[in-house]
Amino acid sequence: MHDYDIRSKIGLRIKELRAERGVSQEEFANLIGMSRSYFGEVETGKRNVAAVNLEKIAKGLGVSLAEFFDSEFFGE
Amino acid sequence: MHDYDIRSKIGLRIKELRAERGVSQEEFANLIGMSRSYFGEVETGKRNVAAVNLEKIAKGLGVSLAEFFDSEFFGE
Repeated sequence: MHDYDIRSKIGLRIKELRAERGVSQEEFANLIGMSRSYFGEVETGKRNVAAVNLEKIAKGLGVSLAEFFDSEFFGE
Repeated sequence: MHDYDIRSKIGLRIKELRAERGVSQEEFANLIGMSRSYFGEVETGKRNVAAVNLEKIAKGLGVSLAEFFDSEFFGE
């Protein structure tokens, strides 16, 4: 796994989980009440997303934060 | 478990792991190159800590982010 930084890894994991659920960025951003552009930047690793938004995203994806980070993207 | 918000839960988990390692706030903040006052505010739930710092803290505690969030503080 290329040595992405944590922002990129978080973005890749979000994209993986979102794609598994067949939801577009726009649909998902609306679902969790987040601006589409901000969410798009989180997903492309451009944002150093903070805990409150990370929890909101994980909840929207239907996973706990432990499940969110339990992924090969994070070396698990 | 009182319904703390995510900031407080993260702070409680950090404090738990730090105490298990017998390290003071000051020693730990120095260890990971973070200002003691900022770290103290993260631990007391006053900061909406972002991914880069969260990863830095977890690494300093010797746990992965999955292990960090795999705790009853987060309903696991």
